[in-house]
Amino acid sequence: MKELPIHIQLDLKSGKTLYEQIYEYIREEIRAGRLLVNEKLPSARFLAQDLQVSRTTVDMAYGQLVAEGYLVARPKRGYYVSALEGLYELRELPFAGQKSGEGRQMESSQEQSDACRYDFSPNVIDMRLFPYATWKKITRNILVDAKSHMFALGEPQGDVELRTTVCRYLHGSRGVNCEPEQIIVGAGNDFLLLLLEKILGRHIHVAMENPTYVRAYKIFRSFAYPVSLVPVDEKGIRVDCLRKTDAQIAYVMPSHQYPTGVSMPIGRRMELLKWAAEEEGRYLIEDDYDSEFRYKGKPLPSLQASDTAGRVIYIGTFSKAIAPAIRISYMVLPYPLLERYRRECGFFSSSVSRIDQTILNEFIRDGYFERYLNKMRKHYRMKHDLLLSEIRPLEKEFRITGGNAGLHILLTDKKGRSEAVLEEAARSQGVKTYRLGDFRMGEASDIGEESGFLMPATMILGYGGLSMEEIREGIGILKKVWS
Amino acid sequence: MKELPIHIQLDLKSGKTLYEQIYEYIREEIRAGRLLVNEKLPSARFLAQDLQVSRTTVDMAYGQLVAEGYLVARPKRGYYVSALEGLYELRELPFAGQKSGEGRQMESSQEQSDACRYDFSPNVIDMRLFPYATWKKITRNILVDAKSHMFALGEPQGDVELRTTVCRYLHGSRGVNCEPEQIIVGAGNDFLLLLLEKILGRHIHVAMENPTYVRAYKIFRSFAYPVSLVPVDEKGIRVDCLRKTDAQIAYVMPSHQYPTGVSMPIGRRMELLKWAAEEEGRYLIEDDYDSEFRYKGKPLPSLQASDTAGRVIYIGTFSKAIAPAIRISYMVLPYPLLERYRRECGFFSSSVSRIDQTILNEFIRDGYFERYLNKMRKHYRMKHDLLLSEIRPLEKEFRITGGNAGLHILLTDKKGRSEAVLEEAARSQGVKTYRLGDFRMGEASDIGEESGFLMPATMILGYGGLSMEEIREGIGILKKVWS
Repeated sequence: MKELPIHIQLDLKSGKTLYEQIYEYIREEIRAGRLLVNEKLPSARFLAQDLQVSRTTVDMAYGQLVAEGYLVARPKRGYYVSALEGLYELRELPFAGQKSGEGRQMESSQEQSDACRYDFSPNVIDMRLFPYATWKKITRNILVDAKSHMFALGEPQGDVELRTTVCRYLHGSRGVNCEPEQIIVGAGNDFLLLLLEKILGRHIHVAMENPTYVRAYKIFRSFAYPVSLVPVDEKGIRVDCLRKTDAQIAYVMPSHQYPTGVSMPIGRRMELLKWAAEEEGRYLIEDDYDSEFRYKGKPLPSLQASDTAGRVIYIGTFSKAIAPAIRISYMVLPYPLLERYRRECGFFSSSVSRIDQTILNEFIRDGYFERYLNKMRKHYRMKHDLLLSEIRPLEKEFRITGGNAGLHILLTDKKGRSEAVLEEAARSQGVKTYRLGDFRMGEASDIGEESGFLMPATMILGYGGLSMEEIREGIGILKKVWS
Repeated sequence: MKELPIHIQLDLKSGKTLYEQIYEYIREEIRAGRLLVNEKLPSARFLAQDLQVSRTTVDMAYGQLVAEGYLVARPKRGYYVSALEGLYELRELPFAGQKSGEGRQMESSQEQSDACRYDFSPNVIDMRLFPYATWKKITRNILVDAKSHMFALGEPQGDVELRTTVCRYLHGSRGVNCEPEQIIVGAGNDFLLLLLEKILGRHIHVAMENPTYVRAYKIFRSFAYPVSLVPVDEKGIRVDCLRKTDAQIAYVMPSHQYPTGVSMPIGRRMELLKWAAEEEGRYLIEDDYDSEFRYKGKPLPSLQASDTAGRVIYIGTFSKAIAPAIRISYMVLPYPLLERYRRECGFFSSSVSRIDQTILNEFIRDGYFERYLNKMRKHYRMKHDLLLSEIRPLEKEFRITGGNAGLHILLTDKKGRSEAVLEEAARSQGVKTYRLGDFRMGEASDIGEESGFLMPATMILGYGGLSMEEIREGIGILKKVWS
């Protein structure tokens, strides 16, 4: 591990602080290419000694360089010169598709996506058909009539008009059985999960499906909660494995598990509900993230709809079905938790403006949302059907699953290739695909051999953000490189 | 408990499953009014036996009916026909004043306030002068130009345009020294504090001023943090007492302590900054909640402005200065915490829509905010001056403090009366006043005899929401009942 000398001439009489001088020197060295990507910098202790300055001065300079993206700090290893692309820059989103607010995020291999011509991200929605004009019209009309009460702070749970509308919508489309008073409206799923942590209290043990939605996993990990990972089979979370954990809470996606695409059949649902009802204080968090898009068969009702014991916390969002910018999610609390929320968390004020709540309320109430959903269902179904028919020739090489719903499918390799090999083969021809492995959390040993489901290399293809033409072309390439 | 017979003729040869037949039969009975609201259905076990079908079949039929709202399941009692409307009432806010979003909330005696004609709440702002037309115009213009990128999810920290504008504003008006990259924009102070908990990590010990902002106290208590209460004297938080605690974090309001109205002089600020810099990992949270309104003397710079060691986390909001509905607050992080945020919490997505960020950005950038603040400063100063001059005759009975800034003053009794007696005397004549005691947290023994400051009965009079006429009349009554 070579320690690189930094030859700075510090000037005590210059107008600049020592920290600024160190910062500027290193920044210029990087910009000029004299310090190269992945080169290790001297430790702060070493450099401070070398320059005869305080450790804090060097820490501040390094901190600034990290913050600005010139350096990257690797825990227990030190500071390294960053690869400059995409660090803290805002990646410009392609016009066609938008990263969904509550997007199921790919964390590990996103950097390369920009370079690819066809990005089969499972985390992009198509905003080309969004009724911008209608949304603007509603906003304009609301503002014309807006009196000061519109600029006041609303109820902590959200305005009753919106909650009533959401309640009716959830009931009609998802079979969710609740009263408006059980709904909490918040600025995104993340906010609601932060709030839920406070409602559930400390010392809670959470179980999650594995593979799972990475952001939710990170959020639970950021709580003071132990997280157990439970394998998923072709019916969803394995309740037999769940029973081996000490979990009180299980976070599940029964309608369309992310990312496996599994829909949980009623039998497994009943098993899961039974588990929850068996002990005081057990709850299921149902994340019904893209229930709006189902193409084959009857829409499955939510798990909450089958819950007779009041053990399901239902969470959903409008970021996916409407637009990522609509920072409005909702959480339906069973009565015992609602009571705890009111007693212990009622002081958290609403995180959504009344104006936004009113716009959304009218958009749903006046039927625009339903019409938009119908249009999008047709639109996504066209893409979905095209993708499935185009990909058919690959059925010799792959088992294809996860169709019929949502915005992505999965291809499980039959020929013993690795995900890395498949990803790279596609990437080299300008097609970005995603690896199921990136959604598997924890150590390999956590997963256990019992979870053979989708264990061979499995690639994820999302189609939300691609046009028909792009799907056809992208799959055309995959057929060549993956067969 | 009568069990109602269900006379279904099940048809094994029909295309429909047994569950669907049961479901449809009962649904029709309800629709036709043959089953009445609140009528109890046979238990699933009973009906299964009666129809010679499996229990699961009946469970599924009932489940579907509950899901669709025809039946309601009452735990341990069974299934009942639902009443179709849900009831929920929203309390209407008074037109004149709005509860401020980040309002310093009175928790204990709010219920009575409705009955009072004159409400001297310290938690109401005057929205009568808000430039609604300007706000609407900006919104309209933004929507006209809005392309799909406006409906996309923005950066987790907030859009860089808004952060740059906020940075400039904070520097100019509060002397805050920071870069846009240090700012995190969020949907309200509560959200930012929830995020800050994740940034600071577990096992943090917090100190707060006592008396203090009750909502922040509750929020910290809802964290897994021990909270120490530190007395306030006429210079602010007592650093000598702070030193006796194990706190790493102190939450302070140096510019205008809430609710005591104390402005911390530079000497005390230096003491406080020194405390923070002395040990690794110590930070001050500066809540600069109503720094915009100062009527006498130069505006005090923020504590952050004097911080050379990077130990101040600066938090502020637009809910008070603009409107409670503007769910936009900001937090300025010192670099080490910024780095930790990016490393460990960067996955929390933005809680504010880009549209709202853009409206606010233009409102500030184009000078409307400054103009509105100037107008409000004049307006509040008029009320402030009127209140002080009207209340002068009570100087024999009370020591009057906390003036010169903010939207409330304090009256400390010289005659040994209790806060309860004073409050009730006013309330009986239709004037709602507030007790300082309600802002003192913890046990009496926590406060300690050393905190003699404002210890005799002290009443709080806020004037944000009252008109000049109401102030005159309300104080007129107080002069009679309190002298």
